[in-house]
Amino acid sequence: MPPMPRYKLTIEYDGGPFVGWQRQANGRSVQAAIEEAILKLTGEAATIRGAGRTDAGVHALGQVAHVDLARSWAGGKLRDALNAHLRPEPVAILAAEAAAEDFDARYSAVRRHYFYRIVNRRAPLALDRGRAWLVARRLDEAAMHEAAQHLVGTHDFSTFRAAECQAKSPVKTLDRLDVRRAGEEIVIEASARSFLHNQIRSFAGSLKLVGEGRWSVRDVETALAARDRAACGPVAPPDGLYLARVDYPNTSAPS
Amino acid sequence: MPPMPRYKLTIEYDGGPFVGWQRQANGRSVQAAIEEAILKLTGEAATIRGAGRTDAGVHALGQVAHVDLARSWAGGKLRDALNAHLRPEPVAILAAEAAAEDFDARYSAVRRHYFYRIVNRRAPLALDRGRAWLVARRLDEAAMHEAAQHLVGTHDFSTFRAAECQAKSPVKTLDRLDVRRAGEEIVIEASARSFLHNQIRSFAGSLKLVGEGRWSVRDVETALAARDRAACGPVAPPDGLYLARVDYPNTSAPS
Repeated sequence: MPPMPRYKLTIEYDGGPFVGWQRQANGRSVQAAIEEAILKLTGEAATIRGAGRTDAGVHALGQVAHVDLARSWAGGKLRDALNAHLRPEPVAILAAEAAAEDFDARYSAVRRHYFYRIVNRRAPLALDRGRAWLVARRLDEAAMHEAAQHLVGTHDFSTFRAAECQAKSPVKTLDRLDVRRAGEEIVIEASARSFLHNQIRSFAGSLKLVGEGRWSVRDVETALAARDRAACGPVAPPDGLYLARVDYPNTSAPS
Repeated sequence: MPPMPRYKLTIEYDGGPFVGWQRQANGRSVQAAIEEAILKLTGEAATIRGAGRTDAGVHALGQVAHVDLARSWAGGKLRDALNAHLRPEPVAILAAEAAAEDFDARYSAVRRHYFYRIVNRRAPLALDRGRAWLVARRLDEAAMHEAAQHLVGTHDFSTFRAAECQAKSPVKTLDRLDVRRAGEEIVIEASARSFLHNQIRSFAGSLKLVGEGRWSVRDVETALAARDRAACGPVAPPDGLYLARVDYPNTSAPS
């Protein structure tokens, strides 16, 4: 018997109303919303696996998950049918594609791209409420970018790791951590094969201290070297964090 | 007795929960939300006047209004205090400044800038729900832009005017109507001294027909020349429309 066909789903969501990506006992998750849509569509109690286990309030423009289904689906039809069943949840299947049977959204990923949005102004957020971190004090984005470069590379990131992080090792390779300003908005872009739990929000919280002039660039180096959670700046709120894209070496099904 | 000091307010809001800018009997308006914040702050039942009377669901990044208050305020203090009283409404005072006594947010405006966002894809909107118009069929933005150029200039815009429009004349001068694409998003930028009611949403609805290939560029010229509401394409939804900025010759108080 051939294996069940596997599908790769690319997903956008507003993390605001959810307890996070992953199924949890304490509330509605994005995973559960999609699994329920699959159940309604196919009658199958499928389990989907996501590339990034985003926390409550964290958004995605391109989360990726995989799922095995009993019958074959044309990608466009599966996407449209799942979206119809997801209504009115703020979750959209951007693409559904047949994937190789060994494709694993989590383990096949070679790079994850996130960004973190800060709106640097005094006035509260009206249109971007829940979609960015409001920081009133004027931030020096050049200092933030300079400090960020000391975090790029392979390091023990214990300082920037949540206590509940389940990764086996605190050593990760950070490929990119860029800070740039466009008007009143500051964006931090982070890319790595994988991240520790709360790593980017921990970076954002510490870099904000640099931007405010409360930490020097040297303080960031010292915090990293401490390999101690207590050395981290306050973790930034989830609102500003977006899972932008996940890269795979080859996601196509064999033809 | 000197006149009451006049203030210019620059305002951002999410139009989604409101019946529109203007006070109405049938629900909550942005104007009423701000006037209530002023009442809570100063005890004054002030009336504010806005530059653009945006409809229900239309957003603003830079609406401008003026108000006369009994006492003098430092601009930053007035802004912060009004924002504190506006909470939790999705309305933010971006700036409050002393203005000349003859400054009128509506009549002193020399140019209004709006943009209209279309997301051109099949999948529903998750993060941009209520913030853009979802159009599934692939749009030809070059054709839309070409057609838009035939609307620029001084014309009788009766075709693109809501039946309930209160403007004395349907003749307006449209300074700019640009259509450009960035990825799956198409933005229509419109600038003029003033607009008719529903004018930009009427443009967007007709230009969408051009983008879909259902109308030719010539059809837009014909619709304009008809000077007849019945010749307009379906009016685009409010979700995609943003009042971006209002220009004044000089908004500073005499020093």
